[in-house]
Amino acid sequence: MAGETIITVVGNLTADPELRYTQNGLPVANFTIASTPRNFDRAANEWKDGEALFLRASVWREFAEHVAGSLTKGSRVIATGRLKQRSYETREGEKRTSIELEVDEIGPSLRYATAQVTRAAGGSGGGQSRGQGQVAEEPWSTPGSQQASAPAAGGDAWAAPGAYGDDTPF
Amino acid sequence: MAGETIITVVGNLTADPELRYTQNGLPVANFTIASTPRNFDRAANEWKDGEALFLRASVWREFAEHVAGSLTKGSRVIATGRLKQRSYETREGEKRTSIELEVDEIGPSLRYATAQVTRAAGGSGGGQSRGQGQVAEEPWSTPGSQQASAPAAGGDAWAAPGAYGDDTPF
Amino acid sequence: MAGETIITVVGNLTADPELRYTQNGLPVANFTIASTPRNFDRAANEWKDGEALFLRASVWREFAEHVAGSLTKGSRVIATGRLKQRSYETREGEKRTSIELEVDEIGPSLRYATAQVTRAAGGSGGGQSRGQGQVAEEPWSTPGSQQASAPAAGGDAWAAPGAYGDDTPF
Amino acid sequence: MAGETIITVVGNLTADPELRYTQNGLPVANFTIASTPRNFDRAANEWKDGEALFLRASVWREFAEHVAGSLTKGSRVIATGRLKQRSYETREGEKRTSIELEVDEIGPSLRYATAQVTRAAGGSGGGQSRGQGQVAEEPWSTPGSQQASAPAAGGDAWAAPGAYGDDTPF
Repeated sequence: MAGETIITVVGNLTADPELRYTQNGLPVANFTIASTPRNFDRAANEWKDGEALFLRASVWREFAEHVAGSLTKGSRVIATGRLKQRSYETREGEKRTSIELEVDEIGPSLRYATAQVTRAAGGSGGGQSRGQGQVAEEPWSTPGSQQASAPAAGGDAWAAPGAYGDDTPF
Repeated sequence: MAGETIITVVGNLTADPELRYTQNGLPVANFTIASTPRNFDRAANEWKDGEALFLRASVWREFAEHVAGSLTKGSRVIATGRLKQRSYETREGEKRTSIELEVDEIGPSLRYATAQVTRAAGGSGGGQSRGQGQVAEEPWSTPGSQQASAPAAGGDAWAAPGAYGDDTPF
Repeated sequence: MAGETIITVVGNLTADPELRYTQNGLPVANFTIASTPRNFDRAANEWKDGEALFLRASVWREFAEHVAGSLTKGSRVIATGRLKQRSYETREGEKRTSIELEVDEIGPSLRYATAQVTRAAGGSGGGQSRGQGQVAEEPWSTPGSQQASAPAAGGDAWAAPGAYGDDTPF
Repeated sequence: MAGETIITVVGNLTADPELRYTQNGLPVANFTIASTPRNFDRAANEWKDGEALFLRASVWREFAEHVAGSLTKGSRVIATGRLKQRSYETREGEKRTSIELEVDEIGPSLRYATAQVTRAAGGSGGGQSRGQGQVAEEPWSTPGSQQASAPAAGGDAWAAPGAYGDDTPF
């Protein structure tokens, strides 16, 4: 891809990510990032919150499951991706457009938090950067099989309730 | 600040972050991010690794400690910050410059990993975005006082020498 | 300002910039940038246009006049600025939001064009970068005075029809 | 390409761009952008210049000629592209690396200047954004034909007739 409009956003999730599966069993997570700028008010000699930007975002495939398993309402994140415009029609037949973020990379910000990271079983990612959209078709995206036994992939333990026990490391 | 050169980098840490303290007790973490692009080789009809970019990065204050406590060699991260040029002289008296990243936000990428996030006790960050460099002077950054009794501010327990015991939280 | 969502867009103006003046005589130019990504269609072995992103943009003060005097419908531009969300109500009382670009810097792209650049008389800009929003109040922005005799500041002569002689380049 | 480190820089050229031709007759322009941030000094209640970032940049093909023909020492520009690391050896056999900007788009900033834009004869660019490196074969790049009549388009006069040989690679 070329000529896309790339953007980096830092903000907080307004709600838990919504994880759904397409008819083909492809996972997609949707969420909204609220980014609040700070302006220095010289008169008052202090910083004040500006008006927030709310950006709807989506992320796909196993990456979507990682997001849904790691981030929650209020999580401060750093995300980068491509701005996409979507045209749609309201029930009343009115045409509208919305601007959304197609996430290429996202992670919890460590500015006010710590994180314990677990590499996903299927992922390489060790010393490699894999390009956006180059993720090969994963077995788990096959309809049927994955719904039935999703947490099979080792690193996806977060999908299994109770996976974090007393030995939680923080 | 205005007119700074802002950049977002995605890559892997080449080594564990080095955490040090300034004479004033201010924590700083240094590390290198290796970012490897992928080019589509049309002749071969496949993606090939391009030449990596190695970017030296630094992060300050409690944020530095969060980074040092959360990321390790090989971690895939997404980082955004400001490019800074630094001039220095070699032992031979030769003048050189290097370009580094002053990190504003960084987090582990969730593309190939999951993360369990724990909010730092002292941090607000919940529903607020605090601007770069706007972090108020924390008690623990006062010389002397902080080494002695840093953990006054709840989440800052890590600032106290010897604080890393058996119950070390990382 | 800090924590703002900064973005760079490359695209073409969908129409000539609209230049207007606030009640205080402050110039503002509005326009829309259409940015069309290109995707490589591996099956067809060729590049195809993706869906365009249309981003509404605004620019203020003498900068607005420079834009209105330099760019026209179809101009390919490179622009950087801050994404802003604006809430408004339709005539039917429906609440909506739109996302716009508050331009910090914009210029004609030289990829497929050349440009003859003329420094504005009032501007420094020579060896200095002036921060966003730091532009001092210009004389011409004083209500009343500027409508009457705007071109006082030399570089703004383009605002006055006929101000350029026979060899006027626009 | 994917996973590249993309950056936008605003600054001033430290000198006129140097235009050269590869052995194959491929034009390349090199120049340095100096970007000076501004910090608000609260104590002094004023903005002060920070330390400048000097970024070496290069641009290729006809685009290089447009740059060389439009920008000069001191020009304030906005540029976006990819950060590239280059390894080289000094005469003394010492290994070094430098970071440079491979420009995808650049233009004169209109913040303190106006510009008269002339579309390049061969370029379309009208209502289309063409991706980086996707530049279609331009008429003028055909050996022979362009030398004969290239400078017809006013702004292209700087293209040195005869500079392209029979081995022109496009």
